[in-house]
Parts: sequence; structure tokens; C-alpha cells
Amino acid sequence: MHSMRRSESAQIAMMLEVCAYPKPGNVDRCHDYDDTWLEHFLASAILVRPAFAAAESSTTGMGDRIKEAVSLTAVHEGGNTHFGAYILLFPLIMGDGIAGAMDVIAQTTVDDALRFYEAFALTEVRMNETDELDVNDPQSAIHIRDEGLTLKDIISYSAPGDMVCREWSNGFALSRRVADYLLSAPDGKQAIVRAFFSLLATEPDTFIIKKHGTKVAEWTQARAKEVCRGTYAAEEFDEECLARGINPGSIADITIAGIYLALREGWDWESLGTA
Amino acid sequence: MHSMRRSESAQIAMMLEVCAYPKPGNVDRCHDYDDTWLEHFLASAILVRPAFAAAESSTTGMGDRIKEAVSLTAVHEGGNTHFGAYILLFPLIMGDGIAGAMDVIAQTTVDDALRFYEAFALTEVRMNETDELDVNDPQSAIHIRDEGLTLKDIISYSAPGDMVCREWSNGFALSRRVADYLLSAPDGKQAIVRAFFSLLATEPDTFIIKKHGTKVAEWTQARAKEVCRGTYAAEEFDEECLARGINPGSIADITIAGIYLALREGWDWESLGTA
Repeated sequence: MHSMRRSESAQIAMMLEVCAYPKPGNVDRCHDYDDTWLEHFLASAILVRPAFAAAESSTTGMGDRIKEAVSLTAVHEGGNTHFGAYILLFPLIMGDGIAGAMDVIAQTTVDDALRFYEAFALTEVRMNETDELDVNDPQSAIHIRDEGLTLKDIISYSAPGDMVCREWSNGFALSRRVADYLLSAPDGKQAIVRAFFSLLATEPDTFIIKKHGTKVAEWTQARAKEVCRGTYAAEEFDEECLARGINPGSIADITIAGIYLALREGWDWESLGTA
Repeated sequence: MHSMRRSESAQIAMMLEVCAYPKPGNVDRCHDYDDTWLEHFLASAILVRPAFAAAESSTTGMGDRIKEAVSLTAVHEGGNTHFGAYILLFPLIMGDGIAGAMDVIAQTTVDDALRFYEAFALTEVRMNETDELDVNDPQSAIHIRDEGLTLKDIISYSAPGDMVCREWSNGFALSRRVADYLLSAPDGKQAIVRAFFSLLATEPDTFIIKKHGTKVAEWTQARAKEVCRGTYAAEEFDEECLARGINPGSIADITIAGIYLALREGWDWESLGTA
């Protein structure tokens, strides 16, 4: 694949991630949820374009960009599909890579934080109900203003319990790992599923923890290890997760960021080399 | 799904068509070809955006727009994915519906014809080898200039043997039929496959005729009739077509145009109503 704009690479990353099969418990080319389908994820990847394009040309205004992305993709009925992915993709697009992303993050403002909360309110992303930064609570905005919290502060606040937010403080460590995995694999898009399983085997998915608790996240991790060792079939694990409503959504978001980085660094998703 | 720009509706139409399953012999969410994958079709749907956006704001320059679309989507290795669809989508976008499209078509120029031939040369679309308007023959361009042939003339020339080109002279009759089918169906995206089969059962696909001859096209049509009557399984027909390399590519192009029209007229692809 020839050179692409950063916005296009981000869209292609979203498309490649959702199509990759089999990904346990998540929407993929062979599985829809009842209310969120493959087509909803792909519609988001198409409709988000103007927000990504705007992010290419400015290193400020991340809150506006994220809010724009959520608005553009909230036109379908599939609910929020990519909020976590946007948290990772926008700094990476705006900063043109991880080093630049860390600079962009360091420069986020109180306004960015407020716009981010407005964006969050447009989604149905699961929140901790006891959270003092509750998006549905007008006091949160007042709290942000009074304390002078930037978007970086807000994301840091969520980092302990959210592996996507942690990427902002650890230099996109897991996104980098996915990218390195893909860049060293010979077999193009086929490697996405293996990168996904490799992360799932070593990292408890914080989206699963929030939704089902630590024990279920550990079970998922243990099963993923078996799949990596070849002692358990990925397809069977997938069906098991779907039946139990277990979806590693945060690892999916990080996988998208990893695909984006790999694409920017010349990864050939069309390679036909064998693993 | 709320209001979209025309360019976005065209992209969503391309996305919905390729995802629809089971479509006999064509790439769908469950089938790739060896060298053209679901992801290639979706990459085209993402990358074509600027050409569609430009088409929204001008009723002239169709040849440039088609050439731009082919260039933008020729960056992947999946080969030409949507040339036939572009022939239908560009007039429909530029004219904002069928009546406007017919006006836009009537106004095409010799320059449009020349750009169209240049676009064609960028693809690997199957041509009749004895064709006097061979895109690989520089004499074709001279012939177009000498005779003052417009893009409408060129498309008319191909109409007898090409059902996509015929849409330009018959007022997008089959695209309209697909749109009407979808608009009257209660079950959203599920209806795409039935619309596809309904066309396949009544119209010999000219892409199949060019590639395999009339007998194979008739066989495909007869099988599609059995599927519509419920006496033959769509999935089995699909596998049979894939094994024989039979792909109703022209009916797929017309289906995209039909989805586009339906979307513009308020069709709700997300409806969960049952058939």
C-alpha cells in the first residue's frame, strides 16, 4: 500500500482491526452484536474522516477533535464504537508518532478536558458510578475549571483502572508492542489476530474488569494464553466470550493504535508471507 | 442514521454492499478472493472520499472525478474494486438523484471521455479484445477526439453488452429497482442480499457473460431463481460460484447504486424489522 495521509492510516487501522477474525468476544467480520454490527464499526471508520483530517494540521484542540469525532460517528444507532481508540489515535495523529504525541498530550488544556467531557457525555461508555468525575454530573465541569485540570490530568486520573488511559503516561507502551509485533510479522493482516491474542494473554483487559470484575478478566487472560500455546481453539474461545458477553474492548482500542503506528512505519498489511 | 453528505452515503453504500452476506461468488464478510479481500473493498470505500466530495460541488468534470477515484483507490494491491460502481455513483452524486444524473450525463464532454479512458487504463477491468475503443490503444484517444465522442457516447457504445453502462441510457432502471426493493423492505441491511438475488434471478450479469459466456450467466440466473423460490441454499450457491470463479460483479455495482439511492431517500439500513 502506497503512502497515505495520517487520517487515512487511522481509518484503515480502524477498518483492519474490526475485520480481523477471530477476535474473542468482539465484533468481527463473522460476528455482530445484537445492537452493534460490523457495519456500525465500519460506518464510524468512514464518517470520522473530517475529525482526523483536522487533527493532521494542528497540535492543539484535542478536546474539540475528540468531540467532533464522537459527534460525526454518533449518527448511527450502533452506539459508541471507538471512544477508546480516539483517545489513542488523536494524539498519535496530531503528534505524528509517539514522541510527538507525548508533547501534544503535555500541552493539553482545561478546555480540552471540558470538550472531552462533553464528548464523553455523547457516548454510552461505562463509567464507575462512584466516580467524582462523572460526565453526567454538571459538578464535574465546575470541578475541572476550579482545579484547572487539563485533559492530561483527567486521563491520568483514569489511568490506574484503564489501560487505554495508561498509554498516555507510559509512552504508548502497549500500542508500541502491537506495532512491533506487526512490523516483525511476515504475513500482513493475518498477524493482527496474533498480536491481539498476545496482548490478551499478558494484560488483563480493563474494560472486562469494569464490566465483569477481575476474576473474569483473569479467566480471559488464561484462556488467551492457551490459545497462544495452541492448546485451545481461538474460534471456541470466541464463541465462549460471545455467549458470556465478555468483550476485550480496551485491547481492541490499543490494537487499533498499534496498527496505526505500524502502518505509519511502513507495515504492509497486504503481505502474503506466511507466519 | 441521520442525514449524511452525498459523498458519505456513497461510501456507506459501498461498505454495506461488500459486507452483505451471502452474495454468490463475490467478496463478502465471509469470503475473500486470493488477491482481493474484504479489506481491499473497504479500503477503497475509505480512500475514495475526496473524489466523492469533489463530485458533490460540481455538475461537470465527471471524467476527472472518475480518474481521481481510481487513482485514490489504486494504492492498494487488491486491484480494481469499484470501477463499475463509480460509473453509476458519480452521475448520481453530481446530479443528486436520477433526474439530475441524466442531465449531468447529457452534458459530458470529449474531455470527460478522454479522462475516463485514462482512468480505465489504470485498472485491470476486462475488455473485449476486439474492441475498437481499446483503452490500451493510443488510437482510441485519437478516435475519440476525431469523432468528438463524449463520455455519454462512450458509455452508450458499451451499453448493449454491459448492464452497468445500460443504466445511463435507461434512467438507472435496475438501480431504481434495487432502491425500491430496499425502501419497501422492513428489515434494513438484511434486505440487501434479497435485492441482490432478485436482480440476479431476472437479469443475466454481463460481467459473467464477458468472463464465462452466456451459458454460465444463464446457469447463474437459474440458480438464483431457485434461491429466491427457497428451493436452493444461498450459501451452497455461493460456494459453487466461488469454486467456479463466477462473480456477478456488474449486479454488485448496480446494487451499490441502488443502496445509494435508497439511503438518499431515507432508507434505514439499521432497521431491525423482520422480513
